[in-house]
Amino acid sequence: MTLNIGVIGTGAIGKDHIRRISSNLSGARITAVTDVNQEAAQVVVEQYGLDAVVYPDDKALLAQADVGAVLVTSWGPAHEQSVLAAIEAGKYVFCEKPLATTAEGCRRIVDAEIRHGKRLVQVGFMRRYDSGYVQLKQAIDERLIGEPLMIRCAHRNPESGPNYTSDMAITDTLIHEIDVLRWLIDDDYKSVQVTYPRKTRHALSHMRDPQVVMIETRGGVLITAEIFVNCRYGYDIQCEVIGEDGIAKLPEPSSISLRKEGMYGTRILMDWKDRFIEAYDREIQDFIDSVKRGDVQGPTAWDGYVAAVTADACVKAQESGEWEDISLDEKPDLYESRTLSEA
Amino acid sequence: MTLNIGVIGTGAIGKDHIRRISSNLSGARITAVTDVNQEAAQVVVEQYGLDAVVYPDDKALLAQADVGAVLVTSWGPAHEQSVLAAIEAGKYVFCEKPLATTAEGCRRIVDAEIRHGKRLVQVGFMRRYDSGYVQLKQAIDERLIGEPLMIRCAHRNPESGPNYTSDMAITDTLIHEIDVLRWLIDDDYKSVQVTYPRKTRHALSHMRDPQVVMIETRGGVLITAEIFVNCRYGYDIQCEVIGEDGIAKLPEPSSISLRKEGMYGTRILMDWKDRFIEAYDREIQDFIDSVKRGDVQGPTAWDGYVAAVTADACVKAQESGEWEDISLDEKPDLYESRTLSEA
Amino acid sequence: MTLNIGVIGTGAIGKDHIRRISSNLSGARITAVTDVNQEAAQVVVEQYGLDAVVYPDDKALLAQADVGAVLVTSWGPAHEQSVLAAIEAGKYVFCEKPLATTAEGCRRIVDAEIRHGKRLVQVGFMRRYDSGYVQLKQAIDERLIGEPLMIRCAHRNPESGPNYTSDMAITDTLIHEIDVLRWLIDDDYKSVQVTYPRKTRHALSHMRDPQVVMIETRGGVLITAEIFVNCRYGYDIQCEVIGEDGIAKLPEPSSISLRKEGMYGTRILMDWKDRFIEAYDREIQDFIDSVKRGDVQGPTAWDGYVAAVTADACVKAQESGEWEDISLDEKPDLYESRTLSEA
Amino acid sequence: MTLNIGVIGTGAIGKDHIRRISSNLSGARITAVTDVNQEAAQVVVEQYGLDAVVYPDDKALLAQADVGAVLVTSWGPAHEQSVLAAIEAGKYVFCEKPLATTAEGCRRIVDAEIRHGKRLVQVGFMRRYDSGYVQLKQAIDERLIGEPLMIRCAHRNPESGPNYTSDMAITDTLIHEIDVLRWLIDDDYKSVQVTYPRKTRHALSHMRDPQVVMIETRGGVLITAEIFVNCRYGYDIQCEVIGEDGIAKLPEPSSISLRKEGMYGTRILMDWKDRFIEAYDREIQDFIDSVKRGDVQGPTAWDGYVAAVTADACVKAQESGEWEDISLDEKPDLYESRTLSEA
Repeated sequence: MTLNIGVIGTGAIGKDHIRRISSNLSGARITAVTDVNQEAAQVVVEQYGLDAVVYPDDKALLAQADVGAVLVTSWGPAHEQSVLAAIEAGKYVFCEKPLATTAEGCRRIVDAEIRHGKRLVQVGFMRRYDSGYVQLKQAIDERLIGEPLMIRCAHRNPESGPNYTSDMAITDTLIHEIDVLRWLIDDDYKSVQVTYPRKTRHALSHMRDPQVVMIETRGGVLITAEIFVNCRYGYDIQCEVIGEDGIAKLPEPSSISLRKEGMYGTRILMDWKDRFIEAYDREIQDFIDSVKRGDVQGPTAWDGYVAAVTADACVKAQESGEWEDISLDEKPDLYESRTLSEA
Repeated sequence: MTLNIGVIGTGAIGKDHIRRISSNLSGARITAVTDVNQEAAQVVVEQYGLDAVVYPDDKALLAQADVGAVLVTSWGPAHEQSVLAAIEAGKYVFCEKPLATTAEGCRRIVDAEIRHGKRLVQVGFMRRYDSGYVQLKQAIDERLIGEPLMIRCAHRNPESGPNYTSDMAITDTLIHEIDVLRWLIDDDYKSVQVTYPRKTRHALSHMRDPQVVMIETRGGVLITAEIFVNCRYGYDIQCEVIGEDGIAKLPEPSSISLRKEGMYGTRILMDWKDRFIEAYDREIQDFIDSVKRGDVQGPTAWDGYVAAVTADACVKAQESGEWEDISLDEKPDLYESRTLSEA
Repeated sequence: MTLNIGVIGTGAIGKDHIRRISSNLSGARITAVTDVNQEAAQVVVEQYGLDAVVYPDDKALLAQADVGAVLVTSWGPAHEQSVLAAIEAGKYVFCEKPLATTAEGCRRIVDAEIRHGKRLVQVGFMRRYDSGYVQLKQAIDERLIGEPLMIRCAHRNPESGPNYTSDMAITDTLIHEIDVLRWLIDDDYKSVQVTYPRKTRHALSHMRDPQVVMIETRGGVLITAEIFVNCRYGYDIQCEVIGEDGIAKLPEPSSISLRKEGMYGTRILMDWKDRFIEAYDREIQDFIDSVKRGDVQGPTAWDGYVAAVTADACVKAQESGEWEDISLDEKPDLYESRTLSEA
Repeated sequence: MTLNIGVIGTGAIGKDHIRRISSNLSGARITAVTDVNQEAAQVVVEQYGLDAVVYPDDKALLAQADVGAVLVTSWGPAHEQSVLAAIEAGKYVFCEKPLATTAEGCRRIVDAEIRHGKRLVQVGFMRRYDSGYVQLKQAIDERLIGEPLMIRCAHRNPESGPNYTSDMAITDTLIHEIDVLRWLIDDDYKSVQVTYPRKTRHALSHMRDPQVVMIETRGGVLITAEIFVNCRYGYDIQCEVIGEDGIAKLPEPSSISLRKEGMYGTRILMDWKDRFIEAYDREIQDFIDSVKRGDVQGPTAWDGYVAAVTADACVKAQESGEWEDISLDEKPDLYESRTLSEA
């Protein structure tokens, strides 16, 4: 049975998922698309040779009975409305981050899903599908390093664009660590502090870069996360979990080693798009497979809500310089089981 | 357009490709299968939920007009006949190694393909699709290390089974290096010598293990290949190319690093099936995509022939202890272009 | 000219330096020793076959005209008095850390040295002589990584003894980082905060372990230092300097690599005494050589004072949980030049 | 007791050992020197501020009763005569490699030492004192990798001088591996074959470079040794021992790691003088200490003889292209015990 997928938003990431589903993955096809720019949507249909109808908007697309699932890949502010509409239509929905631009918006989606009575939503936190993080989680779950005590991580980009602002270090960059770290150690966050080291000369005048975010979890794990979006030397994701009995560390991306001109080394990726390319494939394949089983298991709407609440507290800590609380609602029963790791 | 694939031979590797095509890859489906054991073939159809017909033999399967390509995954001695039949039927055919059990058999396939006038055959040398070897080839092609002068490689397994004999170190084990190394440096082989180090106590009494094979290429590159199939510590594939200006080396498989109990290390795979799992996916996806384009680009029947001739010389050198010549026919025009690297 | 050295305090570290000077280093001999336990001192003289006189106390030893330099290797609380007496006697003096047990005591030594008008004192911060730190400093000084912005470091021991208390994480353990990091980046400290991650089950009930110390320098560099004295897996010193253009990291101690039983790894030291054994040799050889040149260049009394003030602020921060200021007196002219790096 | 040392030959390596003994090492002083160039010897005495007499020749120097040991650091062809004279004078003698320029010359020294009845000679094979090789030997001796089966090693220099000839790849370069490998695995050599890979364009026209030397030991261990003296990228010594249960490999020289400009790497030494600098220190200190104990334990005259015989066979194999035998005399009783590893 081939799954028919509708795509809401045919910009860069939408096109990338269309390409992925059409050329790399198994068991699904794109049969419906929509975009605020109808012409652009039509161009995409032709470009990828899709046998797909262009609908005027998300509601029209969601009204199609033969669409089994949708991807929400529009711009962030439009996500909430499309996801709510998908839930109302009873469709499975994969939504790129952010699930909604506010914690309240995320909570509305959670509530809608609870009313529906069954998980329909998967949020696009692809790192949980990266083989390195999966190995790291297995090591932690198998108690290879004992109880986790600290995490040291870094998220580094060679360069940030002119529109990148200091708060985006949280909402666009750290947001991936915010999701993946609590999944990694099966814990939630309690409080956060942001500290600013000396600013790099490579950062634009309006922004702080690098930043160091210190997060304490409810279980007492202390996370020290560096965000450095003008580090110049490469796109580099580091994560090291320090436990009672040992330390486990994320692998470097696989690279040949070279001995040349007095140096012995491996290559560092320069482009973030290369880093998690296989994780994106696995994420969407998992969504397709789990929709076909009727049992979505990836990052939940609740995970989207937690990320939003945590990011809000981080942004507040950026401004205050103080430790700020991270206060979550009680976790609804719907989300108690069915996490990827328990699958 | 979904490609309809027939599978000739539904044993272990046949089932693995069926699973792959059904669950991981894009653009193809299994519509026909056959096996000397008809019941086993029927079980596989049910097990994987295939919408496929079980045919009594390869000829019946190849007679189906709606089968666009076939996989030959029967046992080795049956390959030649099925591949020749596929060529005669004008079907694209992916054949697991060996293409044929003798160099003469491979040559017959080459001749049949030449008579057909167009490439139809891809041989299952999956290492050319491994991301590490691909990086290595790119580094060599970009002249990062200058002209290659030597290659040091090793093919190590934890343990060999009771039926493994000394010549299988060449025909079953080194055969992968034989194919991938000439592709890597775009060269052909000239002569070979086999030397036996002290035998490990872990090897069975009837066999030599480890073995060191030294191959000289026509371009003068000296390859030193260690085969060690009872090395105990892991499944380990090493390859290092020493050039005029530097050295490039295959990456270790990606692994988290651990600091624990006085050691800092990464894991070594123990099972060969884990090592090239992604290469198998890429290999079959490439076959599907290139068949759909009408332009097969993977390892050719000629590559299968060269591997067979080289393996014969290696086995002769195992017995003689002398340098043995590796004599190839002249390369037919059909195979002059269209290698993967030139694609 | 052989330098005659007197040793004040013949306990463990005193004996180790006596062995070093007698058997490994060049240009000096031990001619005088003293210890509160006179018999123990006599035993040491015999054990090492020294041609040395045992004096009743430091003053008697310092009164000997033929003693060219002294090592103060008594217990910490006795250091200040012996160093002041040595300065008064106009003798060169190498003092193990701490220079004095209080910042005020260190300041008195600084003042005495200023009155004397010339540097006589070297403090036993041996890490400045470790080849890894020396390489790291060279890389920073050569601007290989641009301006330093952050430092991430860790000081880990397998196990702490029963008398180890939480403040000793600063005064006995972090004290080495406190000295070496400001030397590394040629900067001074401004403020400090201490945070406690979840406590390891391996720590005794009376203490906090691990601890994370965050120090801001006057230049804005943010140091995140982990102290973890019951990490179990090994003695491990990590230091990574993140600069505007790249990152430089301390080497792991040199170790053969092993492939064995599914792991590929190197050994981690278990005993701290093995980690800086060559740095101790270089430190004392440098003291001998510089005394003979009349020009002591290692860590100064001022460095000892700075370390004491910084440690005091760290201990205060341990208790308050707040950012605490690190306030130094103005640096006296005597210490403006003559650092090791400028030599 | 300070050991009085005489130095026969005050060229580059002689001066280096004089500097070492005067400034780095413990327990010895230079009291006598000689050189064919008397003026040069006098200059050295002044340059290093030695309290030493310049003698007209080795015999005059060896006649001095207060000289306890000599270093032979003249040019190779003069070694045999000076070592024989030292033995006749009953003096301990450290001789830089080669012990003599022919196997017969080495044998004459062995015979003289046997007649003397006690070991007096230590040969300058410093690698046995390198901490990496020492770790490797310990791992082998502790059976961490089981019985050794193969060794893969490489000796690479960035560039060879205009006077370097193909046979010097053996006599000047491989000679160090020839000594250290048999010590490492406690075995002797049986036969050797030399193979020439494609020549690098960086080698001068009169020479072969690289070369691959394959040596079989009496115990059946197969050694594959690459010599590549124009590898351009660095001075690089590799050694990997493949055993029945695992593999142990020499460490890379300690280096900070850098992340910079898309590369993650460590530095490779460019100058051979930096590689074994600490091994030279340990070697001479061990000579001094063992002379003072009256019990020389480093590489023996017999080791020098074995190296010479082996090198002769390698050179013969360079010319013949065949496997050549390595035939040693029976090992005299004098050399049966007292190896460094048994100390």
